[in-house]
Amino acid sequence: MNISLAETAKALSGARKLVLTAHVNPDGDAIGSALGLGHVLRGMGKDVQVFIDDDIPAIFSVLPGYEVIERPEKETREEKIKADLLVVLDTSLDRIGDVGDIVDAPVFNIDHHVTNKGEAERLYLDSNRAATAEIMYELIKEMGQDFTQDIAMCIYTGIATDTGFFRYSNTTPFTMRAAAELMEYGVKPNIISEAMEQKSYDVVKGMAEAMQTIERFCDGKAAGLFLDQALTASIENTEGFIDMVRVIEGVDVAVLLKCKEERLCRVSMRSKGLDVAKIADGFGGGGHVRAAGCTLEMSFAEAKKTIMEAIGKALEAGI
Amino acid sequence: MNISLAETAKALSGARKLVLTAHVNPDGDAIGSALGLGHVLRGMGKDVQVFIDDDIPAIFSVLPGYEVIERPEKETREEKIKADLLVVLDTSLDRIGDVGDIVDAPVFNIDHHVTNKGEAERLYLDSNRAATAEIMYELIKEMGQDFTQDIAMCIYTGIATDTGFFRYSNTTPFTMRAAAELMEYGVKPNIISEAMEQKSYDVVKGMAEAMQTIERFCDGKAAGLFLDQALTASIENTEGFIDMVRVIEGVDVAVLLKCKEERLCRVSMRSKGLDVAKIADGFGGGGHVRAAGCTLEMSFAEAKKTIMEAIGKALEAGI
Repeated sequence: MNISLAETAKALSGARKLVLTAHVNPDGDAIGSALGLGHVLRGMGKDVQVFIDDDIPAIFSVLPGYEVIERPEKETREEKIKADLLVVLDTSLDRIGDVGDIVDAPVFNIDHHVTNKGEAERLYLDSNRAATAEIMYELIKEMGQDFTQDIAMCIYTGIATDTGFFRYSNTTPFTMRAAAELMEYGVKPNIISEAMEQKSYDVVKGMAEAMQTIERFCDGKAAGLFLDQALTASIENTEGFIDMVRVIEGVDVAVLLKCKEERLCRVSMRSKGLDVAKIADGFGGGGHVRAAGCTLEMSFAEAKKTIMEAIGKALEAGI
Repeated sequence: MNISLAETAKALSGARKLVLTAHVNPDGDAIGSALGLGHVLRGMGKDVQVFIDDDIPAIFSVLPGYEVIERPEKETREEKIKADLLVVLDTSLDRIGDVGDIVDAPVFNIDHHVTNKGEAERLYLDSNRAATAEIMYELIKEMGQDFTQDIAMCIYTGIATDTGFFRYSNTTPFTMRAAAELMEYGVKPNIISEAMEQKSYDVVKGMAEAMQTIERFCDGKAAGLFLDQALTASIENTEGFIDMVRVIEGVDVAVLLKCKEERLCRVSMRSKGLDVAKIADGFGGGGHVRAAGCTLEMSFAEAKKTIMEAIGKALEAGI
């Protein structure tokens, strides 16, 4: 059932004990929204716990409250936590891991993803917002609560990370003004951005190796990084690698191919115009127009040739 | 002589023919400010020319008016351009190349750099502004003029590039709100950011080569890219390379060393805390606390050893 912002504010204000959660593989919006809302509710005197069923990347240790995030640890838990509300942020209910199993409470879902499956008992969904943290910003005002520096840092981080630091097409004037107000509560954009951009030395070394494989094709309209099985195994994390290709002049489609096993390759694609979801769909994958992926059950060499040809055909058809 | 914003607006409004210029090696703020102000003044029915004594990088072709920027071509010019005002943007008068020599007009200087030398007849300086384009935003309002999409795109680009897309410490709530308003006139942040991030294939290939040289030192508190003479010669443009080092976890000081000639090495440094201007100063260079550079007249191997030792000493002294 869809609920209004005012009803959402009322429900949260009326609860005494709340459990907050967000999706596995948590990003800045998931973590920032959960921590920010947690600070607000604690400031209102409520009993709040934050659970996320995954590791929390160390870059988020810059956020106040990072250390209070718990994992559900379902196996060793003797009984369920009784609460007035389980608030699920930035995802449908299917991506919260074991958190749903350890909490006995009515579920309240708050999200900005248009793909939200809507299976929550109560859902506040606003897909015009760039981030769930933008909804948190509105919700805090709706609840009549003041921002503190701690709250502002968390909410700002959610907004900044989901908009690529105000560069993606989802960034609106509302986004900019919300960030302006949060900065007035002491958020330092350089502190947050430096923390978010941090990479381990090994990841940077891995990026250097991966960039050696760069290849342009389709008359320069596409380019990719092609990591064979050995190289894929040696690199812990390839987040952001595809951006090194995406920025090349004249490139519409950027590809990252990783050979995970002898006959299992994972393909990620980003485009500036071409519908790469269609290409991915042809191989049983999916995604959005500008960001999609698929898995190819073939050797590294075959997979590379196959995806290059598929992109070539799509580019030709697109003309 | 220092002039107020109101006096600046009055002077510009009162002129009929204006020449606008900005610094050589022009960046987004120089170009965006000059083009944006040009659009406004032309909209007021004035005769406006924009001169910049340098090549204008192709990434700026996304900006309306890019094609009207002229080079002074002093040698082939028969006589000076007579104008009511020469408006020098985003720099002191010493960095406008030949533009001063081809224009016969009183000079009006508008800048946000605290280092402005103040030698202009009339100067409007506001070092609290993140970009000269931020001053343009205020000035346009002070002149009572409306924004158009063309004006907004130019001014937004100046602000966005000088703040690293709202990530640097110079970003203020004023910056964010100005950007919000400019977006309401049709600026698309993704279009501007994609244009600004574009790199040639050769530069990306060069970055891949340069990243192979990455080295950590001083217990991981410093790291650098060290390009010998051959590698330096093979890479056209190293802009942004040092950022690949700056983001490494635990790194305070990032270094880029380029060996330009047999015994001539250029060092750039970025820091998150340490005063690298002091280190640069020790070798006759200079800069700011967090971004500085110097030239070492020694071989590649000597220069590498020398700068590593100097950074090591500074880090020890800093503890």
